[in-house]
Amino acid sequence: MTDIAAGKGAPPSFDDAFQAQLMELFKWRRDVRRFVSTPVPQAVIDELLEVACLAPSVGFSQPWRFVVVDDPERRSAVRANFEICNSQALAGQASERSASYASLKLAGLHEAPCHLGVFAEPEPLEGHGLGRMTMPETIAYSVVTAVHTLWLAARVKGLGLGWVSILDPATITAILDVPPHWVFIGYFCLGYPQAESDMPELERAGWEKRLGNAATRIQR
Amino acid sequence: MTDIAAGKGAPPSFDDAFQAQLMELFKWRRDVRRFVSTPVPQAVIDELLEVACLAPSVGFSQPWRFVVVDDPERRSAVRANFEICNSQALAGQASERSASYASLKLAGLHEAPCHLGVFAEPEPLEGHGLGRMTMPETIAYSVVTAVHTLWLAARVKGLGLGWVSILDPATITAILDVPPHWVFIGYFCLGYPQAESDMPELERAGWEKRLGNAATRIQR
Repeated sequence: MTDIAAGKGAPPSFDDAFQAQLMELFKWRRDVRRFVSTPVPQAVIDELLEVACLAPSVGFSQPWRFVVVDDPERRSAVRANFEICNSQALAGQASERSASYASLKLAGLHEAPCHLGVFAEPEPLEGHGLGRMTMPETIAYSVVTAVHTLWLAARVKGLGLGWVSILDPATITAILDVPPHWVFIGYFCLGYPQAESDMPELERAGWEKRLGNAATRIQR
Repeated sequence: MTDIAAGKGAPPSFDDAFQAQLMELFKWRRDVRRFVSTPVPQAVIDELLEVACLAPSVGFSQPWRFVVVDDPERRSAVRANFEICNSQALAGQASERSASYASLKLAGLHEAPCHLGVFAEPEPLEGHGLGRMTMPETIAYSVVTAVHTLWLAARVKGLGLGWVSILDPATITAILDVPPHWVFIGYFCLGYPQAESDMPELERAGWEKRLGNAATRIQR
């Protein structure tokens, strides 16, 4: 940094052992749908929401909005919406895959002790519009990095997160009674997992395979 | 996991020291715009792209597509597009903020040794549509988690990443000559940073302050 004073504190150094463990974290982070009923302490939830705010955001706009959902009626309404959307998704699957689809467990909404709705404020005052004039979607992307930060921080505490996207955004926005202009990013189940694995559940279930690297890269 | 065989290997345990260092990583990850000219070894770029693919993806669709941009003419065209979009963004700033905006360095496109264009395949065969019927935007969100994974993995190797969003997606898609249906997620500068800090550059420059936690959370 040439003309701007650096922050306080000495920069950390990340040794080989940390790098190797970080790699294990990436490999063993899972989308979890099978939880035990052990509650998540409120202090842990608070800490995870604080860590999430260390994520990057376009123009430092910090557009993430977290909704901790405790009310049983709201939770029940979210589950009902999932059931409707999942039935429609099942109906939309090719006939040769529908039995396989129906056998998958795609959410832990009944069991997860902690439920989080996550939204984006699409027109935050913070950031003064910087960086998002041509790409307003970077607001939502910023919130996604916050979710991913929380996900990793949860995993190192032995907690699993499950991302539920088989939902109708407008319905969830109404159920959670948040400002109607907020953009629904996802609904999340948080809790202690029944088991740990280094393989995605959809891969273990034979739904999809991991792509080779070559399939995802080109050079220009 | 009750009915699905677990993956191979014993689950890692993440001790307090690792958790504390992970927190340092989140705190010291920056959006970098000031790079030194030291090249990034090809093996490091390859490794980072491999790590990025450990990110979560909707339906295990793995929709990330990475474009390593080496061609000087394409890089120059990207820079030119940034200059146009940044001038328009400056013109769109409130008059009392335009001098401040103009003083900010918002991209390291001239100096960064490695350039990456990142796209999403919006209709991947992989995943068979699972999880994205009501929320097709989860495809783009999956790619964002891959970028964030790469960002963190780069930081522990002493590398900085800068996310350039002040670009016209259609123009960048054409410059990089990728399939026109791919969705442009962002353009990234990767290299060794001139300095490290635990404070966002936009905060240090007085552009924006960090929000208090209460501003980002509600309970329902």
